[in-house]
Amino acid sequence: MPARTAVVTKKLSEIYELLKDQAAHDAKAAEVGNLLIRLAQTSLDFLSRCTQDSLISRVPGKAYFSFVTHGRGGKMSRAVNRELFDHNCLNKLRHVADGTLARMPPVERGRLLYTVAMSYCCAADLLKTRDQKTPATFFECMIGHLIARAFGVNPRTQVEVLRLEEESSTLPTDFIFDLGSAKPKFHVPVKTSTRERVIQVFAHQRVLDGVHGFGKFKGILVCLAETKLDHKSREVIEICVPKQWNLYQRFIAPMRRFYYFDIPKKYGELVEGEPPMSVVNFSKFFDEAADLAVGR
Amino acid sequence: MPARTAVVTKKLSEIYELLKDQAAHDAKAAEVGNLLIRLAQTSLDFLSRCTQDSLISRVPGKAYFSFVTHGRGGKMSRAVNRELFDHNCLNKLRHVADGTLARMPPVERGRLLYTVAMSYCCAADLLKTRDQKTPATFFECMIGHLIARAFGVNPRTQVEVLRLEEESSTLPTDFIFDLGSAKPKFHVPVKTSTRERVIQVFAHQRVLDGVHGFGKFKGILVCLAETKLDHKSREVIEICVPKQWNLYQRFIAPMRRFYYFDIPKKYGELVEGEPPMSVVNFSKFFDEAADLAVGR
Repeated sequence: MPARTAVVTKKLSEIYELLKDQAAHDAKAAEVGNLLIRLAQTSLDFLSRCTQDSLISRVPGKAYFSFVTHGRGGKMSRAVNRELFDHNCLNKLRHVADGTLARMPPVERGRLLYTVAMSYCCAADLLKTRDQKTPATFFECMIGHLIARAFGVNPRTQVEVLRLEEESSTLPTDFIFDLGSAKPKFHVPVKTSTRERVIQVFAHQRVLDGVHGFGKFKGILVCLAETKLDHKSREVIEICVPKQWNLYQRFIAPMRRFYYFDIPKKYGELVEGEPPMSVVNFSKFFDEAADLAVGR
Repeated sequence: MPARTAVVTKKLSEIYELLKDQAAHDAKAAEVGNLLIRLAQTSLDFLSRCTQDSLISRVPGKAYFSFVTHGRGGKMSRAVNRELFDHNCLNKLRHVADGTLARMPPVERGRLLYTVAMSYCCAADLLKTRDQKTPATFFECMIGHLIARAFGVNPRTQVEVLRLEEESSTLPTDFIFDLGSAKPKFHVPVKTSTRERVIQVFAHQRVLDGVHGFGKFKGILVCLAETKLDHKSREVIEICVPKQWNLYQRFIAPMRRFYYFDIPKKYGELVEGEPPMSVVNFSKFFDEAADLAVGR
């Protein structure tokens, strides 16, 4: 590994560890936002020195590219949506930490958030070998911070259930945001992609609905994308099972929102489905956070 | 790889491919049973020439060992339950194919079935690198055959749902055994281990209960074991989440049976739980198949 690459790897790893610790300690703290910015800066700087190779998009209306490293053991990053990735967002990064995201125009806000999320993921794809864990954890920290800040409350990762029983029991979950007594509570699973594992999201929601009554916990899925890149053929597809989503929404438990950074084409169409499912860009969260917080 | 090992690998691979094809074509055919026997014979012959190393069992009351190959790149098989593995079962293998399993004493039958299931899995652990797919597929073929033969009907792997809709839709599942109109139908997920993925089993059952009404499809999980071997420390544990099983059974959907080849200690205790969950040795299936087939 060239010396410069080793330096970037070490720097990213240090910021990542700080981010993880800070987010666990106080997800909504401004420091977490600052670490997200530093991670994005470092990643973008590294990526700006990589090549971008166009990919063959099998998703109508979307164009993708990969960041690529050269030389021995050259690597390809995951597929990046050309329209959503903003190479010139360095001067906008401050919005991630200074509480002004809601004031940005929605499309620009969506591109900024997509770029911040993808830049670290792509850097990790190129610098590490088969590393799926740090991008997933980073993405959780990012979402945890942004939602905690908007709601003014830190998340938990388990819910007490079965208070009638002698022995109390807990259900491990992704994030739970509890805005206080008589205020809304949110069940927020966070995934870089769901694939066939999405059934877990609905099933956890079902347990919460069953234990606490319908509507007590509002289910909000936050997901990066559903792209899959075939490294040999260089083709990008989106892995979607919209008919199964419809079944799960109707027969397991209804989810209130599905926020995506890059909305998969077939899931976007579920907005017109029966029943309609609210699949929207994550940037919209900042427009509706205040309404969600008062139960609207 | 020594020449003899290459010969075994090739022979196992040939029988495995035949088994997969035959099981897909006609799961209940006698030929599938014969192939299961050939696979077990070949695997046991190979394993009899491997060393058995004792493992450190962290499961009270259970002793485990690993089959081990020596020389460069020596490997360890998954953990094998000492009490359940029958090294001298060659002369009993015929019971797997001649329809006489139900006439064997239950404990002997359980050991035979465990040995047949584990022998191929262990051989694959030793002969292949990170091969999780062929043991899982082999196990599905074995269970598919045994249940299909007992019920006299081949399984399907999807269910039609939503007949009211314009466009019909299907739910991909593990095995579905449909004994005919006005007769019982079974939803039979098959896993070598479930870990945290078990929630999918309950969630699929929930969709079937929702679409077809409660009790139309009886849920039967068939699972090999829940052991986990740490190759460094040589410790064996069972990964169990009994409190979550209780929640899933109550709040997602009730499963009728949980058949294990090696019953995990903590899941075995759920028989005394509230509600009681029917976690039993798979050998018991052959005693109760006739009752299940008439809806008892």
